[in-house]
Amino acid sequence: MARRGSRREKQERSAGLAQMPFRPLKNPYSPIEILSQDQVEAIHHASLRILKEIGMRVTDPDSRRRLKAIGCDVVESTEMVKFDPDLVIELIKDLPSEYTALARNRDKNMTVGGNNIIFSTVVGPSFVSDLDKGRRPGTYDELCDFIKVAHGLNIIHQDGGGGFEPMDLPPETRHMDMMYAQITLTDKGWQPCWLNSRSRAEDVIEMTCIALGISREELSNTPTIAACVNTNSPLLLDSDLAEGLVVMAEAGQPVDITPFTMAGAMSPVPLAGTLAQQNAEVLAGFTLVQAVRRGCPCVYGHFATNVDMKTGSPAFGTPEYTKTTLASAQMARFYGVPFRSSNTTASAVADAQSAYESEMSIWGTVMGHTNLVLHAAGWLEGGLTASFEKLILDAEMLQLIASVLEPIEVNESTLAFEAVKEVGPGGHFFGAADTLERYETAFYAPLVSDWRNFETWEEDGSKTATERANGIWKQLLADYEKPPIDQAIEEELQAYMAKRKEDISGA
Amino acid sequence: MARRGSRREKQERSAGLAQMPFRPLKNPYSPIEILSQDQVEAIHHASLRILKEIGMRVTDPDSRRRLKAIGCDVVESTEMVKFDPDLVIELIKDLPSEYTALARNRDKNMTVGGNNIIFSTVVGPSFVSDLDKGRRPGTYDELCDFIKVAHGLNIIHQDGGGGFEPMDLPPETRHMDMMYAQITLTDKGWQPCWLNSRSRAEDVIEMTCIALGISREELSNTPTIAACVNTNSPLLLDSDLAEGLVVMAEAGQPVDITPFTMAGAMSPVPLAGTLAQQNAEVLAGFTLVQAVRRGCPCVYGHFATNVDMKTGSPAFGTPEYTKTTLASAQMARFYGVPFRSSNTTASAVADAQSAYESEMSIWGTVMGHTNLVLHAAGWLEGGLTASFEKLILDAEMLQLIASVLEPIEVNESTLAFEAVKEVGPGGHFFGAADTLERYETAFYAPLVSDWRNFETWEEDGSKTATERANGIWKQLLADYEKPPIDQAIEEELQAYMAKRKEDISGA
Repeated sequence: MARRGSRREKQERSAGLAQMPFRPLKNPYSPIEILSQDQVEAIHHASLRILKEIGMRVTDPDSRRRLKAIGCDVVESTEMVKFDPDLVIELIKDLPSEYTALARNRDKNMTVGGNNIIFSTVVGPSFVSDLDKGRRPGTYDELCDFIKVAHGLNIIHQDGGGGFEPMDLPPETRHMDMMYAQITLTDKGWQPCWLNSRSRAEDVIEMTCIALGISREELSNTPTIAACVNTNSPLLLDSDLAEGLVVMAEAGQPVDITPFTMAGAMSPVPLAGTLAQQNAEVLAGFTLVQAVRRGCPCVYGHFATNVDMKTGSPAFGTPEYTKTTLASAQMARFYGVPFRSSNTTASAVADAQSAYESEMSIWGTVMGHTNLVLHAAGWLEGGLTASFEKLILDAEMLQLIASVLEPIEVNESTLAFEAVKEVGPGGHFFGAADTLERYETAFYAPLVSDWRNFETWEEDGSKTATERANGIWKQLLADYEKPPIDQAIEEELQAYMAKRKEDISGA
Repeated sequence: MARRGSRREKQERSAGLAQMPFRPLKNPYSPIEILSQDQVEAIHHASLRILKEIGMRVTDPDSRRRLKAIGCDVVESTEMVKFDPDLVIELIKDLPSEYTALARNRDKNMTVGGNNIIFSTVVGPSFVSDLDKGRRPGTYDELCDFIKVAHGLNIIHQDGGGGFEPMDLPPETRHMDMMYAQITLTDKGWQPCWLNSRSRAEDVIEMTCIALGISREELSNTPTIAACVNTNSPLLLDSDLAEGLVVMAEAGQPVDITPFTMAGAMSPVPLAGTLAQQNAEVLAGFTLVQAVRRGCPCVYGHFATNVDMKTGSPAFGTPEYTKTTLASAQMARFYGVPFRSSNTTASAVADAQSAYESEMSIWGTVMGHTNLVLHAAGWLEGGLTASFEKLILDAEMLQLIASVLEPIEVNESTLAFEAVKEVGPGGHFFGAADTLERYETAFYAPLVSDWRNFETWEEDGSKTATERANGIWKQLLADYEKPPIDQAIEEELQAYMAKRKEDISGA
């Protein structure tokens, strides 16, 4: 029976590769909760105490001005801002619980919030790697390849920011090239890669309007692009990121506040303390967003992990990471806002460690009801490297968990009494009428996993999963077809970039 | 700061290897449930209908006689037994919800049931593998090495049956050599490897009594050894295994009934039908156990997965496997009996596939509240191979999930307000008083994972996790120390085996 060939009903072929179809994903089960309601409230109150008694340092004068205007206690000489708990609670009490992230192809719009889950590709690494050429600084051509491969993987809902930094392009203008690649090479939605200055964030807004074919006014009533803003933990909001936050909030775009809390280095060793500090920074960010534009959607971001106390190296995909994911998701639900987390590993290569650390992340993030899973595919080495093979292995792991989220159907037909009766004791179901009727759409079909017997596997070259993944991304790249795009949009984007690059080089 | 060296308080050193201490494990969180209560009951009723209208074929005349004696409808010519639903419900309604599995070292006794989790090593493979010598038929010496390595891994609670078959020993008497190795090389508890005939099961009972230093009468009031009995799905109980079941139940030992249901081959394609058939076979087994000895503990066993419809190969660590684990655990809770499942993968080698398929199994089994996780460490290739490297990788994965099960402490001290205040905005926690006080026992310390930076990892040989695992099992083997055992027990076991081998060769 031809399993792969026959799964068309349930699985789309992407140029020969059997995979699950592109579709929204929901977690229909109850989330794993590891904090009691009392513990959630204790963390909430501890974070309000931090904001009231210690406060945040906000280096951007414009942001301090806005916070002062809504009633925060600002000391200009130290750049410190203290927050009145009642004010914070008042400002965040009615934040939107969900919004729709628009994609260039409107069939690929995604709801963010509730029990919806979005898988987004890795963003940020300086290095790229594959089995052929090893780890090296990434280039723009390679970034385009990475976006193309991710475009071909249906389980990936959106492009996270190009995958890695194109180190062959000038840093002042590279953000536009990255965004141009995202917009033109895939028709899925995207997260912008860089927002760390007013002008970069303005470019993101302008290029988004061109790409989606909407005016700035329309955009401002259409929350669509979640802007990830990291606080510089502990308790510091840098000017560059504050500028990006302000621009995005002015434009009515959802802001994802993600503290960079590594227990033992940027936050306390006990996870409760790390969660309290993370929560304080998130609430401070939310408050600033609301100071800019009341009602603007906010996303609760999680990145809490720990450092190795021996070396100072960050650890990822650890039990601490899994537990803070589950706990932070509870905090986000407490505030009624969407939640963002990631798929992480510290492994240097796409080996067994990278798989089990990613699974620790994925299970925590999916079973905790994360809405936006950034870095869901392709991340290696604590986020320093984007790997083509890991992109494929992650896609398999994401498909596996997505399939777990399809509930078991229990009814007269699926209970299959007649099939059991027909086959009888000691019989075989291969030939049963019920089997023949169902086998074409039955069971998960893997991307990478090899289930053949040892001898067949050995004759075929004794390839590891990582070696097979190497063949798969090359196949996806060879089979890539650029999704249709209005030529006028491409030209407008090019014209915008040309002008901006001229302005920047002339500046 | 010396992380590894400083974890003595929380982690025992096993001859230089930092690891978690040997300790009972509980899942304090609510289980993931994927069936509604109505669905659980629908599967229950469907299984009773199978038992009433189709029945089981039971080839052992003694078992048929016992079932007839309690009121089952038996047709001798076809060896078919039909079960009255009321009778089944009556017999299983008050089964013990937990029991204590005794170990030779009573400090390593384990409670089976409730939210307790026991990790047991792989049993059954014909092949053994490691990176040095590849995959080959296993020998007795290698089996002893496997038990020694597993003895050194604290996260492993019991020996599952030696790891693999010693193919250099005669099959008629090999079960005694395997058990001798289990009893003498580790002081943890064990599961017997073979129960597939009356005489083998009798040997297990006799050797258990000698090992634990108790009489047969004492043993019969001390449920301790869970005997795994597979039904030959669909709906067939073979004589060999029925004999083993009867001997164990006569001896008052818990019987774990595990149907061998591979959807599409040995059970219906729809998972609901597979669960109904599995449940019918489990209840038939429980009924036979109760017919032998009313009140004898029963364990609900799960092994449901699916075959690849293209090749007929069994698939493991799939979404179907995870979902039937979670659903079967709900069935076991419905009947109030302990639950048994496994850590499985179809991968031919200890690569990324083996890691993510094992993680799919481990998360399902631990978050579903499995009590006995057989094959928890060392299994490869659908159970055909026991791997030394996989044993180590699995130990890491089991430690990771065990650490997730330690709840986050939330109190005044762990919320660490003073530490946040001391460090202040933009500061660093490395030198904070709170950090210095806590770092020695903070955070998970890995067995295998390498968190060092890329350059250091590369200078150290660019080893994958599997290659590092190779070094770790060799270290554990080199550091192995035989746990103390009363010489009289060893001699009595040797004398028993010598006599039995003489009887068998003379027979």
